[in-house]
Parts: sequence; structure tokens; C-alpha cells
Amino acid sequence: MRLATILTPAGPRLHVRGRSGYIDVAAGTGRPEFAALLAVLHAGQAGADAVRAIAGQDGRECGPWEFGPAVPAPARILCLGVNYTEHAIEGGRAVPTWPEAFVRGGDSVLGPYADLVRPALTERFDFEGELGVVIGTGGRYIPADQALDAIAGFVVLNDASARDWQRAGTQWTAGKNFEGSMPIGPEVVTTDEADMADALLTTVLNGQVMQSARTSQMIVSVARAVEFFSSFTRLAPGDVIATGTPGGVGFARQPPVWLTAGDVIEVAIEGLGTIRNRVVAEPGDRGGWPWHPVGTAAFGL
Amino acid sequence: MRLATILTPAGPRLHVRGRSGYIDVAAGTGRPEFAALLAVLHAGQAGADAVRAIAGQDGRECGPWEFGPAVPAPARILCLGVNYTEHAIEGGRAVPTWPEAFVRGGDSVLGPYADLVRPALTERFDFEGELGVVIGTGGRYIPADQALDAIAGFVVLNDASARDWQRAGTQWTAGKNFEGSMPIGPEVVTTDEADMADALLTTVLNGQVMQSARTSQMIVSVARAVEFFSSFTRLAPGDVIATGTPGGVGFARQPPVWLTAGDVIEVAIEGLGTIRNRVVAEPGDRGGWPWHPVGTAAFGL
Repeated sequence: MRLATILTPAGPRLHVRGRSGYIDVAAGTGRPEFAALLAVLHAGQAGADAVRAIAGQDGRECGPWEFGPAVPAPARILCLGVNYTEHAIEGGRAVPTWPEAFVRGGDSVLGPYADLVRPALTERFDFEGELGVVIGTGGRYIPADQALDAIAGFVVLNDASARDWQRAGTQWTAGKNFEGSMPIGPEVVTTDEADMADALLTTVLNGQVMQSARTSQMIVSVARAVEFFSSFTRLAPGDVIATGTPGGVGFARQPPVWLTAGDVIEVAIEGLGTIRNRVVAEPGDRGGWPWHPVGTAAFGL
Repeated sequence: MRLATILTPAGPRLHVRGRSGYIDVAAGTGRPEFAALLAVLHAGQAGADAVRAIAGQDGRECGPWEFGPAVPAPARILCLGVNYTEHAIEGGRAVPTWPEAFVRGGDSVLGPYADLVRPALTERFDFEGELGVVIGTGGRYIPADQALDAIAGFVVLNDASARDWQRAGTQWTAGKNFEGSMPIGPEVVTTDEADMADALLTTVLNGQVMQSARTSQMIVSVARAVEFFSSFTRLAPGDVIATGTPGGVGFARQPPVWLTAGDVIEVAIEGLGTIRNRVVAEPGDRGGWPWHPVGTAAFGL
């Protein structure tokens, strides 16, 4: 199944791709709570069965402007950094022998075709095409060989990063948590329809290929990532794991490539689809704001 | 006001400290949704007024075993690291010129008097007494001079850390995210009742003072922390900011002091109260688990 969250006059509502178009899941199943992806995930197998039962119908076509984040308001996005060897090398880092983990908050998600706001407070806004994993049942201590059972599906995401904020200290969190800086979608594709063992991931900026790699090149695989995170935290339905970006990002290029207003950045993963976001300037003047990694005394002392 | 979440046969329910004992907020106000702290915070001034109207009554006494996490299931805990000069020095770090930020997930909270599970997968479990800030109204771009208006109250917390997991890579996230590793409480004390500008913070292990510092020694103040985090993320009601720990933690001692089963670790902040947790071993055998920073090849290669 391919699950999209469609922005409607009644708010964001879960839809499933039908024989044609998209079908409103709550209306189709007669279960009002299934307007939210999270409710279907919490319902487990019964939820999946209910959605599958209507997925053979014909639905309505939806324009790109109607797509909300495929995982709306996740509790958190658990992220792996430096999970492709080429990206480690291009960043001047040793290939890690232990996973680098950070967390994004739920307010960082953005629709798959929405305008991507370049924050006013960064000079170094960069793209990171990634495979996202959407947790279904979750839990603690999930062994790698049982990880697929804990996963609801896969999604494309862009872990867009403010590099000056990411690197102002040793911890990357701030640069990875700008509101609305992580496009995600277009659909959550359930594990029975998508094999992510060796899928091609491509990032295209203004028509030019910037990243091209296969998910088999990950240092920590999807299954091992589930195992790793569940070693310490209880994975919950709707949690997202971002599995890291391959080589080719903007900061590592000579000269560096930074996202600016008017750019169009696309990330595609075969079997999952493409997200495509136009970069726009942030409205408002933040000239006097005291926190800005470039050219200001951080603590105003 | 002093807001506690009390574990009852009907689940965790928000209580307010009365003239004596604690009063069930939902029952007292006739607003069933106010059984949750988050609902009161979302109701803003009207929520606070409703609770204040019943806080002069007499309630019932509650034993320590009845206290749940004072902020139950927060969406996230936004954390500052290395925010006291002495803690930077003892850790062999430069005093930071830019905030070090990381995020804990909501599953890491624990009751103020509950048993603190020492994870089976760590050999280096450490304490960090800290002041916590509970966001009330939240928002983006909150200037320091308006930060107090965005804050609902303050709380004591222990940012207990698995140092081997924290330091296995460059990012601290894993070591800071063990399930149930952050005791928080005993109450959320609203800003009108607690002045945290220069409060004494004390951490006591088995009766011995390990940390003693004043909140005025923070490098990034509470107001500046709100300003900093709101530079990039939208603070929401119920978000918690952990403001960092002062000097005296276990890892920096000679020899190091690690928490073990049977220890009793207390954190007190004047005006807020004391949290007190007994350390217990994690049940179950994790001997064969593949992720363990000490003594294993991380990637099983």
C-alpha cells in the first residue's frame, strides 16, 4: 500500500492510493479515527487489513499542492549521520565504527512538494537525500532479523541541514532541527511493496544529479538501525528513522553549493517516488537576532 | 502553583498541591481533560486560572510511590550540554562559545521517586542534576526578555547518562536516551512561585554531596536558552528544556564513580524540591546483544 496524507478543507487526512487516484481512508473504512496515519499504525494488523480492503477502489486524483508530510507530526525522527562511506570521506571524517545518532523534533517535517524555507539565520543551507523508515509496531530490543516486522513502511526524505548551526559546536542538533526543514513523502510505502535492500537513491538540484547511491551502501543497514535504536529507546508507532545521506552533499563540493531561494531540490528512491521542493526565502527580517553562528559573538558577551 | 502527576487506579492524573495534600485537577475543576498537564498548558491563562481557583482547598496526602513523572510523556526534552564552566573543565572540554544541544525522547522520563534502571548495556551510568524548564505557550523567535512569558514552570531532573554510549561516537544522543533514564519532578512549580535566577542545586549520592552549584552559574541562562532553541524550532506547550549539569559528575572523578544497583541518587533545587531515585539492575540477560560500546566490535564485521 501507498499511504499519503492529503491536505483537505477538513484538515490533513490519510489517503491510500487506489486503482486510480487516492481514497480517503476514514471515509472508505468507516473508521473516523483512521483519518490519521498514526491511528492506523497503532491498530496494527487490523489497521493494515482495513486499509487494504479499500485500496482496490478508484479514488480521486490529487495535485502536488494537496500533499502534506507523509508522516505528519511524528513524535520524533531518529537520525543516523555519516552512514555512507563516501559521505564520511567527503566530510573529512573517519569512517565511523559506531553509529552517529541525533534526533529531529516533529516540527521539522514538511510536505513532499511544499516550499522549503531557507532559514534567515543560516548562510549554509544544504540538502541530504535519505531513505526514511516508518516504525509500525516498535518496541525495545528488536533483533535485526526481526526488524522488518517492526517497520510499517519506507519513505523518501530530505534531511536539509543548516551547516553553520550544525558545526558551531560539537553536537549537530541545532542545524538539524529548523522548523519545516525535512520534506518527507510522497507516500509511506508499506514493506510488502518496497524492497529497500538495494534501491537507487538520487538527489537532483536544479536538474543536476548531486547524489546517486544505492541503499545497500549504508554502513548500518535498516535492520541494524532498528536494532541499534531499540537498544536504548522504545520505538513507537510513527517514529521515523532517517538512515543517513550518501556522498555528494553541497558543503563538501569545491566550491560549496548552498541552497538559495529559487532552487528546486528533488530526492528520489526507486520504488518509493520523488519529493520535490522549491527553496524560498524566509519572510521577515532577523537582522538583529542574537543567535547566528556566522559573524556574531555567540553569547553576546 | 505546584503541579504533580499522581499515579491513580484510573491512570496518571494531574494534581495541584493544596492548602494540605494534593487535589485532583480534573475533578476539582470539573474539566475532565485537565487530568493531563498538557491540556492545562494548552489552555493557557484560562487553564492556569482554573487550577489556581481550586489550589486553596484541602487535598489528600500522597506517598512517594504515587508520583509519576511531573511532565508525563513530553514530546521531547531539548537539552543543553556543557552549560557550567566547571563541568566543561572537569570533562576536559573547552568552555563552549556556542551552545551544545541534544534531544531526549519522551520515553526517557521517570517518576521523581521511582526506581532508576541502570541499563544492562552500559558499564558507565552517571548522574547529572539539572534544572528543567517546562514550556507553557512556546513559539518561535522568543527574545530573552520575553522568555519568562513562554515558560509555565520549573522542575528538577536527573539527566542520567550512559557515558560509554555517549562517547562511543561524536554525538551524545544514544547515551542520553535510555528509556526511563531521566527522573523528573517532584512537581512543576509555576514561575510565579519559583525564582530560578540564583537557586542552589545539589546532587547527593548515598548521602554524599556530589554536585553543589547555583543556577546563576549557567553559561547560557534560562531566558537565553529559550531564545536559542526558539531560533530554529517551534517550542510547544509541554516541551522541556534541560539546562545542563554543573561540575561534580561521576565520570570526571578519580577514580570515576558509576551508578550501581542499590545506590540512592538525589537532586534538589531550592524552591523546587528533591527527586530521589534508587538505582536497580535491569532485569533480563542481554549478554548476547550485539550493540555494546565496551568490548565488542560495533558493527559485527
